[in-house]
Amino acid sequence: MFLQTYETYNSINDRDLKEKNVVVIDTLRATSVITTALFNGAKEVIPVSEVEEAIELSKNFDRDTFLLAGERNSQKIEGFDLSNSPLEYVPEKVKGKTIIFTTTNGTRALKKVASAEEVILGCLLNVSAVARYIYKSNKDTVIVCAGTEGKFSFDDILTAGAIYEKLKSLTDFESDDLSKASYFLYKPYENNLYDIMKYGYHLRRLEELGYTEDIKFCLTVDKFDIVPKLKNGIVRTSQDF
Amino acid sequence: MFLQTYETYNSINDRDLKEKNVVVIDTLRATSVITTALFNGAKEVIPVSEVEEAIELSKNFDRDTFLLAGERNSQKIEGFDLSNSPLEYVPEKVKGKTIIFTTTNGTRALKKVASAEEVILGCLLNVSAVARYIYKSNKDTVIVCAGTEGKFSFDDILTAGAIYEKLKSLTDFESDDLSKASYFLYKPYENNLYDIMKYGYHLRRLEELGYTEDIKFCLTVDKFDIVPKLKNGIVRTSQDF
Repeated sequence: MFLQTYETYNSINDRDLKEKNVVVIDTLRATSVITTALFNGAKEVIPVSEVEEAIELSKNFDRDTFLLAGERNSQKIEGFDLSNSPLEYVPEKVKGKTIIFTTTNGTRALKKVASAEEVILGCLLNVSAVARYIYKSNKDTVIVCAGTEGKFSFDDILTAGAIYEKLKSLTDFESDDLSKASYFLYKPYENNLYDIMKYGYHLRRLEELGYTEDIKFCLTVDKFDIVPKLKNGIVRTSQDF
Repeated sequence: MFLQTYETYNSINDRDLKEKNVVVIDTLRATSVITTALFNGAKEVIPVSEVEEAIELSKNFDRDTFLLAGERNSQKIEGFDLSNSPLEYVPEKVKGKTIIFTTTNGTRALKKVASAEEVILGCLLNVSAVARYIYKSNKDTVIVCAGTEGKFSFDDILTAGAIYEKLKSLTDFESDDLSKASYFLYKPYENNLYDIMKYGYHLRRLEELGYTEDIKFCLTVDKFDIVPKLKNGIVRTSQDF
């Protein structure tokens, strides 16, 4: 088994993903939000790239069956039901609902890799579940970090490092340099990720905007034992497919 | 002062380089070779992308004034005077000579950034000299790693980390996530870089080809106190411009 990591989705093309598992990571905050929503009973999450697309799509649903959700510039979108804060996705709100979800970066990463055979979603909340999924599938795997503003981002790379570490405890595998680098960055800080995450531009920007509780939540390792999976444009927990 | 690092030159465009210092790193082995050649008295190095281009260019020179040098698939090019091994660039061979140089990756990285105002060349052999150059120029700086086969490569990223560390000892500066990550990867191994470099694909491939002495040489920190600079397509030591 060979593990490859991409720091952003910019340079990915369909050939790189052929017959591979693809893991998309956007720890702050899209994949953390989707994982939380599904754990808390949401029926499904439909990622879309544009705000208008989300509104248009919602017209196909009865009003009490969906929620419009997401962010622009890290803030709630006017008229939407939920923002990009995982803390809002509580069972009372999301249970049984279809969540139509648009974020600046994470949903675009998902769209970019949608042609792959198997796309799962990773974040710190579910690293062990993701590692086990990769181990069981026993296929070459590509980790695609969403990155921040088109560049390498600490939060996603350290999550890739956490997945590497969990996978390493399950099996031997080969990997590229960036996968190994993510592990070497993660390992010394595994018991206090904030101590390295705090140097990341994205985390600092969210702190400045007041999202301290969101960050604390998203940095929790292995809170949820589920693997969200993208299939035909819809994300559900992998056992629901 | 702001420091940015790119893991490869793929995604760089001219706008990213405007009014900035650019440092190109190809530690294994192009920038190590060029630095060694200039330290040992070569007059200049002319990087060209293609083998045919090198041969064509050499026709403008008297036979005893130039050397044809470089590699394809890490090996010497047929009919060329020198390979891509820094150990061959001894004073007896290179003193006073123009070196027409083509490699698979490093010279392409140099070509890609050639439009920038200031392009200097970095490797482990001259990290402190490069850091001092950046410090004195006091301009925003972009580090461009050559990478290996279009991807993130340990050897170049760890060199970026070494430059970060030396620059940090000279001044305070801001930086992007990849610059900081390069520092966090480098720092625990600063006294024995091989212990982390050995996990890199590129280094292992060179070891398999028998280039153990080259690797040992290229991993020496601060052997040479010079800064090669690219201007109008020609690399000379910065004081020669």
